[in-house]
Amino acid sequence: MPPDLAAIRAAHARIRPHIHRTPVLTSAALDAQCGGELFFKCENFQQTGAFKARGATNAVFSLTDAEAARGVATHSSGNHAAALARAARLRGIPAFIVMPSNSSPSKIRNVEAFGGRITFCAPNQQAREAACALVIAETGAALIHPFTDDRVMAGQGTAALELLEDTPGLDLILCPVGGGGLLAGTAIAVRGTRAQVQVIAVEPAEAGDAARSFRAGHIVPLEREATIADGLRTTVGAPNFTVMQELVTDVVTVSETAIVAAMRELWETLKVVVEPSGAVPYAAVLEGKVAVKGRRTGLILTGGNVDLDALPWMKK
Amino acid sequence: MPPDLAAIRAAHARIRPHIHRTPVLTSAALDAQCGGELFFKCENFQQTGAFKARGATNAVFSLTDAEAARGVATHSSGNHAAALARAARLRGIPAFIVMPSNSSPSKIRNVEAFGGRITFCAPNQQAREAACALVIAETGAALIHPFTDDRVMAGQGTAALELLEDTPGLDLILCPVGGGGLLAGTAIAVRGTRAQVQVIAVEPAEAGDAARSFRAGHIVPLEREATIADGLRTTVGAPNFTVMQELVTDVVTVSETAIVAAMRELWETLKVVVEPSGAVPYAAVLEGKVAVKGRRTGLILTGGNVDLDALPWMKK
Repeated sequence: MPPDLAAIRAAHARIRPHIHRTPVLTSAALDAQCGGELFFKCENFQQTGAFKARGATNAVFSLTDAEAARGVATHSSGNHAAALARAARLRGIPAFIVMPSNSSPSKIRNVEAFGGRITFCAPNQQAREAACALVIAETGAALIHPFTDDRVMAGQGTAALELLEDTPGLDLILCPVGGGGLLAGTAIAVRGTRAQVQVIAVEPAEAGDAARSFRAGHIVPLEREATIADGLRTTVGAPNFTVMQELVTDVVTVSETAIVAAMRELWETLKVVVEPSGAVPYAAVLEGKVAVKGRRTGLILTGGNVDLDALPWMKK
Repeated sequence: MPPDLAAIRAAHARIRPHIHRTPVLTSAALDAQCGGELFFKCENFQQTGAFKARGATNAVFSLTDAEAARGVATHSSGNHAAALARAARLRGIPAFIVMPSNSSPSKIRNVEAFGGRITFCAPNQQAREAACALVIAETGAALIHPFTDDRVMAGQGTAALELLEDTPGLDLILCPVGGGGLLAGTAIAVRGTRAQVQVIAVEPAEAGDAARSFRAGHIVPLEREATIADGLRTTVGAPNFTVMQELVTDVVTVSETAIVAAMRELWETLKVVVEPSGAVPYAAVLEGKVAVKGRRTGLILTGGNVDLDALPWMKK
């Protein structure tokens, strides 16, 4: 059972002391260019540099003392990992983190900085899950799955709750989709509070499983993990897929070129450091994949963890 | 006569429809590192990418219709130029802009985007002033000096007004000083509202005229313009110097290495795109030039206009 609006509101009350209420930025230049009004919810400014702090904190602070005592465990390409390590440290319990070996150095440093205990694995979903199961068998830690966990979904939904509160009259929200935790939380928050707002999911064409699954009516697993948007290299989860089918208006895909162009434009014009995954919603605007003209569109800038020495527009 | 608090409040009411109320960001990681609490007033998110929109807009909207009709003129290394061009366009009048020939391409584009009519000159104060006087003689435009103009100073002071409103209990404010428009406005706003807050000016050692002038008790003109902080390559103005002597607690200088390190850390950790001049206050924290431990320190991130293809940490 995915969370309902009440669970998202409860999550918000639970995590509020531990997270930033992030600002919503606007840009006259970007509005003029697309002919609509864009509202950027800056989760790149969130604790740990990504919205993932919301879901992980809600999950960790939802545990009973007995559950918490043995620690928490997860597998993640990075941002959920750092968020879980931070939440565990806030509660004073250990966090066991399985990370794919190709995770970006900045994301690895982020986990280490919060005292997470890292185990590296091969960069595919099967290897992640196997390594995580082993860690849990050894430690008795509670699994906090990065996107299928109800408590995580509820936590992620709090970003949309704030965006809706701070931005009257939105017509649609563009939300990246990887595993679908943020998407499910967002869609549930919107449905419960302002059901007339459309939720459109955006993903890289190079990791286009959610769009294919949405059209097929069943989950079509991701085969390649070639996209620069490293946070979105995951197949959509089963409960997330169910929510997506029911509440999301559409799932669109964007090219790698558009992701890099979007990232660069957000840095240059909005003056925010956003990672490739976080630039994906704006890439859909740039590529004309969604109708934003004359409408008020919310975009969730999901994270800002990048290596400044390896920007996609730098000479090698 | 420099502006008083009433002039700054009047400026705020006048420009509010035309500018962003920029957010104040915080970072647990940066706080832990310095042992104090840092509050970053993000004027890099301001219209035109810099606080200069405040002063220029106040000046342009303070003109009588007869004055405005002949347009406005200025000389500026870039951010004031773009701000004046934008303000003039909002009022429907021409803006004549004299820019040094070594202005950064992004700043030139910024002026052009708002329809400013550019004249280039040699990169020194004398050449700027001569070229500007010529333009004014030809057009009858009103000079809006980038930092000695009272209306500009009053507008710049509105950033501190907002910072003080949004951040209770500040102990000090770190403010970059080039010509001294922002510094004067900030010091006057602080003195009028919360006089116990210290204002400390920060400038690059490579453009250390304000610190030398502060200690000498008279203006010591800037000889070199070697700093990476291109917005601060100016000698402090006469009225600005007077305000500085009266209201500013200290003027400290920072190294070029610290400016680049500060800029990079703000990008990496705070996730904001800030230009070298805007990173100067945080450079003072990094270099231990101001006591921030256990105190609540406001820092004005003055602008975010940079060339993403020429970042100081990139390989050439």
